[in-house]
Amino acid sequence: MTASASSATNRVFNFSAGPAALPESVLREVQDEMLCLPGAGASLLEISHRDKLFVDILHDAQDTLRSLLGISEDYSVMFMQGGATLQFSAIAANLLRGSGKRAEYLLTGSWGKKAIAEAKKEGDAVAIYDAKETNYDRLPTASDYTVSDDAAYLYYCSNETIQGVQYPSEPDCPDSVPLVSDASSDLLCRPVPVDRYGLLYACAQKNAGPAGVTMVVMRKDLLERADPNTPGYLYYKNHHDNDSEWNTPPTFAIYVLGKVARWLRDEIGGLEAMEKINREKSDSLYKIIDGSNGFYRGHAQQDCRSLMNVTFNLPSDDLTAKFIAEAATHRLAALKGHRSVGGIRASIYNAMPREGVETLGQFMTDFAAANG
Amino acid sequence: MTASASSATNRVFNFSAGPAALPESVLREVQDEMLCLPGAGASLLEISHRDKLFVDILHDAQDTLRSLLGISEDYSVMFMQGGATLQFSAIAANLLRGSGKRAEYLLTGSWGKKAIAEAKKEGDAVAIYDAKETNYDRLPTASDYTVSDDAAYLYYCSNETIQGVQYPSEPDCPDSVPLVSDASSDLLCRPVPVDRYGLLYACAQKNAGPAGVTMVVMRKDLLERADPNTPGYLYYKNHHDNDSEWNTPPTFAIYVLGKVARWLRDEIGGLEAMEKINREKSDSLYKIIDGSNGFYRGHAQQDCRSLMNVTFNLPSDDLTAKFIAEAATHRLAALKGHRSVGGIRASIYNAMPREGVETLGQFMTDFAAANG
Repeated sequence: MTASASSATNRVFNFSAGPAALPESVLREVQDEMLCLPGAGASLLEISHRDKLFVDILHDAQDTLRSLLGISEDYSVMFMQGGATLQFSAIAANLLRGSGKRAEYLLTGSWGKKAIAEAKKEGDAVAIYDAKETNYDRLPTASDYTVSDDAAYLYYCSNETIQGVQYPSEPDCPDSVPLVSDASSDLLCRPVPVDRYGLLYACAQKNAGPAGVTMVVMRKDLLERADPNTPGYLYYKNHHDNDSEWNTPPTFAIYVLGKVARWLRDEIGGLEAMEKINREKSDSLYKIIDGSNGFYRGHAQQDCRSLMNVTFNLPSDDLTAKFIAEAATHRLAALKGHRSVGGIRASIYNAMPREGVETLGQFMTDFAAANG
Repeated sequence: MTASASSATNRVFNFSAGPAALPESVLREVQDEMLCLPGAGASLLEISHRDKLFVDILHDAQDTLRSLLGISEDYSVMFMQGGATLQFSAIAANLLRGSGKRAEYLLTGSWGKKAIAEAKKEGDAVAIYDAKETNYDRLPTASDYTVSDDAAYLYYCSNETIQGVQYPSEPDCPDSVPLVSDASSDLLCRPVPVDRYGLLYACAQKNAGPAGVTMVVMRKDLLERADPNTPGYLYYKNHHDNDSEWNTPPTFAIYVLGKVARWLRDEIGGLEAMEKINREKSDSLYKIIDGSNGFYRGHAQQDCRSLMNVTFNLPSDDLTAKFIAEAATHRLAALKGHRSVGGIRASIYNAMPREGVETLGQFMTDFAAANG
């Protein structure tokens, strides 16, 4: 298998916003088991989701997430398909449709906007804060919004990947209102007080695994609110009651997710250790931005800078293009920012090694010196 | 990489109904590329779905399916998540809801029953044939049902995996009515006259790849029928208009699907060659059943026996258990029938090698001789 061994030396530092870098040790395990999952006599790709070997893998992934995040038995942990996009509809179909209430949204970036558009199809959904006037570079302060005591739920996106805006902690929310979060691009980057949430979800392809599976953590009492006439795949109770096997789950994505969660717990040491590393990594890049005399201009306001997506602009589009081209010669890949913000986006999720961030930091310093 | 090399020798003949056996050559390619997709400097699992490398993979998978099935430009080829189960709702949401028409269903097994249950949430859906009285062992004849000229669509399941009942060709359907088929467990097993369909879909985990992706082939004029207020992920037009990248698609599952499709076209020689092999494989097992003097009793009537799922019963539950246990010692795995039919189900999808079927056939002959 020299092909595999040699190709591994060609790996770049991959700053993709998602699907994104995975721990190399996880990829090696997956590679080793590709033809034969131990005990199966077949690839994981080939065995039934009802096979005890897979059911154990699914339960282990759930249990590892529970231990990492401190998820109590008051919550269901489900694996679903369709990404955050399907959740946009499922949340509103389960918790808003027919409730006679209104759902309230905090809009701090692109993903929140997409979520409310789907919710409006299902009922009364209102943005009680919208940062569009400053191109989504900031968070609301407590005085910027008021949540109704009888809202169906309060929805926010904890980390806006495109803008690089992250909530440092949960927004204010009355106890009577379920707090719902799209944590797709920051779940597992730091500890989370799950007990404050009604529903918390994340597609896996940022911090937790490959595209194709979404983790949904939902307070069990909320499962009963939806009308059973909700389209079956969107009806959370089907997934909960059947332990994520109402229909065939995305077995491979769950298997990789479980390995990533174990890596995080056993190799990194859990979410507090992970947060410390993530803070060191992101701080080192923000320090270079702030020390560049305006050559690099961060998009997000300082108090809401993301640990995961470092977004910044250069003085011109030409320099941005030059930055990306020269970075590639240093094995630094996938740095182009989203068109709505422009410039550079360095996504430095859990699996981005310190060495990658250091290499990028040095390159940024050198590039500013040569072109500033 | 001796672990991989040695573990491959432990592979069994895997008769799982799905997820199911994959071509070993495909698994080896996936293994070789796991750390580094050629040209990417990263695993396929790690690169963006917007990366040209992945977009090319997606287009190649579509093109290979088009060439295998002879799909014209009148049809869209989409990749979606959520399995057949999500399609049950999506079909009715797009083609039935608000249409003022009724959808008509032919029920010849478990999957058709699940499909109509979801459709009834969206509108008027009626079973115009239901084989439940004979525990779904047969197909309707032309005189058993009449399709309304103004039906929203006629729905059927071309191969009922659990019962092992397969349509030898399309059911009668007026030209005015879109024919819709769940071909999850037999698409790609033989040529299909796609032009006769309005919509044809198949989850991948039988004949085409891993769990987590569903192929949807839809006549483009039907895309316009749905209300844009359909939940976004269920609204086919979103997927079509964005070439299966409305949101992050299940990149790995599409990548493997593309490799399986190429294997089928380039190694096997296409669908006519595949059908010939599938017919030889299934005929050899049905011949043993028919020649066993009643020791083995096939579940499906002879005229609708499946090429894919060979279902049969033994004289007693004890003998069934003994059969399964002894088969395992011959590297024959995952043969237990579904509880609703009992007995044995040998799923012999495209990737099951002749050698596996021959080994099973010899075992069946020997077992009947020893226990009959």
